[in-house]
Amino acid sequence: MKLQLALDLVNIPEAIKLVSEVEAYIDVVEIGTPVVINEGLHAVKAIKDRFPALQVLADLKIMDAGGYEVMKASEAGADIITVLGVSDDSTISGAVEEAKKQGKQVMVDMINVPNLEKRAREIDALGVDYICVHAGYDHQAAGKNSFAELKTIKSVVSKAKTAIAGGIKLDTIEEVIAAEPDLVIVGGGITGVEDKPAVAAAMQRLVRGA
Amino acid sequence: MKLQLALDLVNIPEAIKLVSEVEAYIDVVEIGTPVVINEGLHAVKAIKDRFPALQVLADLKIMDAGGYEVMKASEAGADIITVLGVSDDSTISGAVEEAKKQGKQVMVDMINVPNLEKRAREIDALGVDYICVHAGYDHQAAGKNSFAELKTIKSVVSKAKTAIAGGIKLDTIEEVIAAEPDLVIVGGGITGVEDKPAVAAAMQRLVRGA
Repeated sequence: MKLQLALDLVNIPEAIKLVSEVEAYIDVVEIGTPVVINEGLHAVKAIKDRFPALQVLADLKIMDAGGYEVMKASEAGADIITVLGVSDDSTISGAVEEAKKQGKQVMVDMINVPNLEKRAREIDALGVDYICVHAGYDHQAAGKNSFAELKTIKSVVSKAKTAIAGGIKLDTIEEVIAAEPDLVIVGGGITGVEDKPAVAAAMQRLVRGA
Repeated sequence: MKLQLALDLVNIPEAIKLVSEVEAYIDVVEIGTPVVINEGLHAVKAIKDRFPALQVLADLKIMDAGGYEVMKASEAGADIITVLGVSDDSTISGAVEEAKKQGKQVMVDMINVPNLEKRAREIDALGVDYICVHAGYDHQAAGKNSFAELKTIKSVVSKAKTAIAGGIKLDTIEEVIAAEPDLVIVGGGITGVEDKPAVAAAMQRLVRGA
């Protein structure tokens, strides 16, 4: 099981500072969609250049032009690129094909996917690397979380790894780990606490112990 | 009826050069998703600063954090911001609420929306400014277009304006205009031709004549 730090509400210098504090405790650093929108793939390049030993995930939430966007993100140094589960199969397949060519990985974000079980089965068959259940900001504001969704996709996915994101904190991560995802994604649960290294280290111990 | 130029495969200097050539013939310039991904909202700011008389659309394809993303795009100078039709109602409502606060407009991109008629009715009720039918790159590669979809949404939408995008060229724009959208979005149909001003001027005449 791996730990991913999601950076959403920072600029590039703030992102570098944050990752510096916790780099020993995380496996993947995510350049979140808000950072991509604000800074573009320059943010991915800046983090990969500065932290080459970490995997960098570019949270593009691709909805169209799957192959092209994966190519651009790969050029910028991304190791994992996200595509939306609500996108067309051709978009996901285009992303997978280009990622394989580039030696990169594709994660499908299942945010707001209706009929999760059916769609997870379809997406697993498209050869993606990760399927991620995700309670977004707007979902969290409405009180939703993704534990039940993780169980649903784990029951049908046979090839892809699974990931979970959305509102995970130190006091909820054990419940998440018990559901056995391959990747746990934490944002504010690390970036929003006083002692970031201590919390990240504690999360790493829990994630690795599992 | 208005004409929008979509810029998808350019960097910021190339975008400025392109818009300079055709600014007299277009109403809205779109910073397309691939440009946003590559350059971030810096591209929106650069174009709005250089062409303040044009409306600038930021094609963010928002899937989460509707209010926050509309706020950031507004700060960068966007006049219209896109949200995905496949996103949660709370995301669309958050975007609409923030746009009203900022004096901006929201366009919902119906790319890959299942049950278009039902979803267009729901989204119209959420108070968005535009609903856009959109044959994406990956859809166009599969031979799809959006004329039938425009007719479908026009039959159910009562408050929002309608827009159409995807593969529109000078030799197909009259068919599009006949379906009476409020906004016609052209990308490669202008950026991919030799004499861009001539083609944009011809399109403007057809759009304004309607």
